Amino acid sequence: MADNESGPLTPLELYDRLTAQGDRVRTLKTEKASKSDIDEAVKQLLALKVDYKTSTGQDYKAGSPPTDATPVIQNGPPDDEDDFVDPWTVQTGSAKGVDYDKLIVRFGSSKIDKELIDRIERLTGKKAHHFLRRGIFFSHRDMHHILDAYENKKPFYIYTGRGPSSDSMHVGHLIPFIFTKWLQEVFNVPLVVQLTDDEKYLWKDLTIEKAYQYTIENAKDIIALGFDVNKTLIFSDLEYMGMSPGFYKNVVQVQKHVTFNQVKGIFGFTDSDCIGKISFPAIQAAPSFSSSFPEIFNGRRDIQCLIPCAIDQDPYFRMTRDVAPRISYPKPALMHSTFFPALQGAQTKMSASDANSSIFLTDTPKQIKTKVNKHAFSGGKDTIEEHRKYGGNCEVDVCYMYLTFFLEDDEKLEQVRQDYTSGAMLTGELKKLLIDTLQPLIAAHQERRKQVTAEIVKQFMTPRKLAFDF
Amino acid sequence: MADNESGPLTPLELYDRLTAQGDRVRTLKTEKASKSDIDEAVKQLLALKVDYKTSTGQDYKAGSPPTDATPVIQNGPPDDEDDFVDPWTVQTGSAKGVDYDKLIVRFGSSKIDKELIDRIERLTGKKAHHFLRRGIFFSHRDMHHILDAYENKKPFYIYTGRGPSSDSMHVGHLIPFIFTKWLQEVFNVPLVVQLTDDEKYLWKDLTIEKAYQYTIENAKDIIALGFDVNKTLIFSDLEYMGMSPGFYKNVVQVQKHVTFNQVKGIFGFTDSDCIGKISFPAIQAAPSFSSSFPEIFNGRRDIQCLIPCAIDQDPYFRMTRDVAPRISYPKPALMHSTFFPALQGAQTKMSASDANSSIFLTDTPKQIKTKVNKHAFSGGKDTIEEHRKYGGNCEVDVCYMYLTFFLEDDEKLEQVRQDYTSGAMLTGELKKLLIDTLQPLIAAHQERRKQVTAEIVKQFMTPRKLAFDF
Repeated sequence: MADNESGPLTPLELYDRLTAQGDRVRTLKTEKASKSDIDEAVKQLLALKVDYKTSTGQDYKAGSPPTDATPVIQNGPPDDEDDFVDPWTVQTGSAKGVDYDKLIVRFGSSKIDKELIDRIERLTGKKAHHFLRRGIFFSHRDMHHILDAYENKKPFYIYTGRGPSSDSMHVGHLIPFIFTKWLQEVFNVPLVVQLTDDEKYLWKDLTIEKAYQYTIENAKDIIALGFDVNKTLIFSDLEYMGMSPGFYKNVVQVQKHVTFNQVKGIFGFTDSDCIGKISFPAIQAAPSFSSSFPEIFNGRRDIQCLIPCAIDQDPYFRMTRDVAPRISYPKPALMHSTFFPALQGAQTKMSASDANSSIFLTDTPKQIKTKVNKHAFSGGKDTIEEHRKYGGNCEVDVCYMYLTFFLEDDEKLEQVRQDYTSGAMLTGELKKLLIDTLQPLIAAHQERRKQVTAEIVKQFMTPRKLAFDF
Repeated sequence: MADNESGPLTPLELYDRLTAQGDRVRTLKTEKASKSDIDEAVKQLLALKVDYKTSTGQDYKAGSPPTDATPVIQNGPPDDEDDFVDPWTVQTGSAKGVDYDKLIVRFGSSKIDKELIDRIERLTGKKAHHFLRRGIFFSHRDMHHILDAYENKKPFYIYTGRGPSSDSMHVGHLIPFIFTKWLQEVFNVPLVVQLTDDEKYLWKDLTIEKAYQYTIENAKDIIALGFDVNKTLIFSDLEYMGMSPGFYKNVVQVQKHVTFNQVKGIFGFTDSDCIGKISFPAIQAAPSFSSSFPEIFNGRRDIQCLIPCAIDQDPYFRMTRDVAPRISYPKPALMHSTFFPALQGAQTKMSASDANSSIFLTDTPKQIKTKVNKHAFSGGKDTIEEHRKYGGNCEVDVCYMYLTFFLEDDEKLEQVRQDYTSGAMLTGELKKLLIDTLQPLIAAHQERRKQVTAEIVKQFMTPRKLAFDF
């Protein structure tokens, strides 16, 4: 909560504090302040947002100060459970994690419901991926358009990506790629993977060369998941911009149709931000249009795009969908995943800069064991006696959450849930099950990654025709 | 490179520029920039304060923007002699044109004086171009660095450009290219010519395709001036961005080091401008760095750049020079030309969209004759009797001004000046001399342009090694 010094603040004072606090959070992040400092600042930001909403009855929007005419609605106590999600900040007060049903309402997307999952199974003849069955991919936009196209034998393609911010990815980073691979296989469509090394150069204290190096290292991890080189293009923004006759033309078209006011509202940019950050959203938007890849799509501009991504990336694509019809392109469809929780609990998204916040793809079996045993937030009780008597809480237990991502066997997972909830399974046993699941998975990944040579990376990253005719 | 379109600045725009310039001075001081850079920024700040006071009648005060209630004090008639120059606006109240000595003080550049011209003649062994002798190129930055390098057999290169806003260029558009060609020949250095079709797409109601078409048409006119294909690269931003492994990397480096506050201050952008305009200055900056052309400079990052351009383009390159040392590049040197006057008089810069405002490279001999006779603002008297008695005024006569650009013979030009000033030469005779000068010049240009095939354009526009070893 923010300090109130001299009586209650007016809406304008609150607005100014919020704007300043937002600036402060961004500054702390830019300056790589300690995690606790950033968390503290974000907590204040969220508290101010609650105050602002209580006072004005409206959501805070950067660049839109309250006016005298703003109605002040007091609907009882402020909602402590309000989550905050944008591409740089994911905050929730609940150990269960973000309230995704609320997020669907707030973002105006659609829930991935049984009907949609059934239709995917029917059309592809394949059982839905457990990320779909378990609600890990939980929200979508226009997925029925994609399925209509598929049903009518019309082509589409998949676009996903990643900001390569360090040499090593953690298991959470794999989620969109694991699901993307499944999508690509069941629909048999081209895939483009954007590595936004330009974004990382702009946001972090990195050289161009270092950002590109992260791109290559991250590309190896992505390739190690088993993507088909004949159906997949992986590209670095820094490199591909200078290789593609279509990419920049789409970037500049998006840039013409988005104002500073808009990106200020969507992403919270300020006048003190560099012009690179301000124009970057167009670079994440452009791969949504097939003409950004003339080698793959033979110059066609009308191939629809499907973007699987974590829900925090949705603001980029809301913007993209707003612009698309104005520059005569189809709107990209989207499938959104929940956040992969940090070992310490679902209140925050994991950080690649905190080695103990997750399991990294470079971790040894011993490191995995130690991290899970030492850092994984437990839903168990304090003593064995209590645990046996009252049972554990799977809704907040991070080991159980991780198993929903990585234990494919539905029956076994359900048994774990029942046993841990009843107290029949102890926390140590649950942790051991996660360790036994992750250790071989990570070891196998490391083995496959070793096989990924510079030559293979180059093949994936060379603009070329794929195994599809357009 | 932009044409000038909008009117004088409002008090609020001036206020925003002042605020941004104040930020810039503080940033430079914080970053311990060189004394000359800080001095230059302070000089601009002071000049803006004078403008602000003139416009609002009040002293600038940080944090107190001008309101509607701001009293505007009119101390007698407004100062007609105060000029305003930025890439989109050139304003002067004087028929003699902009006061260039004042502009040198305001922009913090240096006058091209006799000493510099003598040094150029001494080092190259060539007589100075009449644009130098007659003060048409009148201002510079760091030209002595370039000459030092030349004297020590160190390489440099020339960069100039144009915003291709219509199929047809007018004679004023040729000025920087005529001078550039002379510079290239006497110093024997590589030349890169940027055609900012992306800028024109962003600023005008144009399609990408139309903007690129203008690029090709304008390239033909530039090539027709006789540039050497072995020493010259002409490039379209829309095309070259997707062909060069170096260009985008430099664009994004500039974009990281310039804030919205800064471009707001320098170019007057607002929150309602599209993010393409806001980030564009980096695209005009990037060709100032040799690594944007790896094929020409073999990847070298340290080759200094000399930019001949009209003075209204200086804001782009003040920004570039500010950023250059922070990304470990040499600052580009500059040579600035005066504006080519409209036929209607020197108060405004010409407009490519007004066919009668200048002589176009597509005009027939008859059109040239009609335009000069009908539209060229005359410094002559109303009747022959008065003219014979009092003489004409060369300082405001547009035909005389045009002759200073296109009549190479110094003695003949001086004779014209004396005769017209004394009244011995009549306005009709002066007009006829200009017509007789321009008609063969334009006809010869049209003849040479006809020889420029699509194949030749393609040669000039293909990224490649030039006839220089690096």
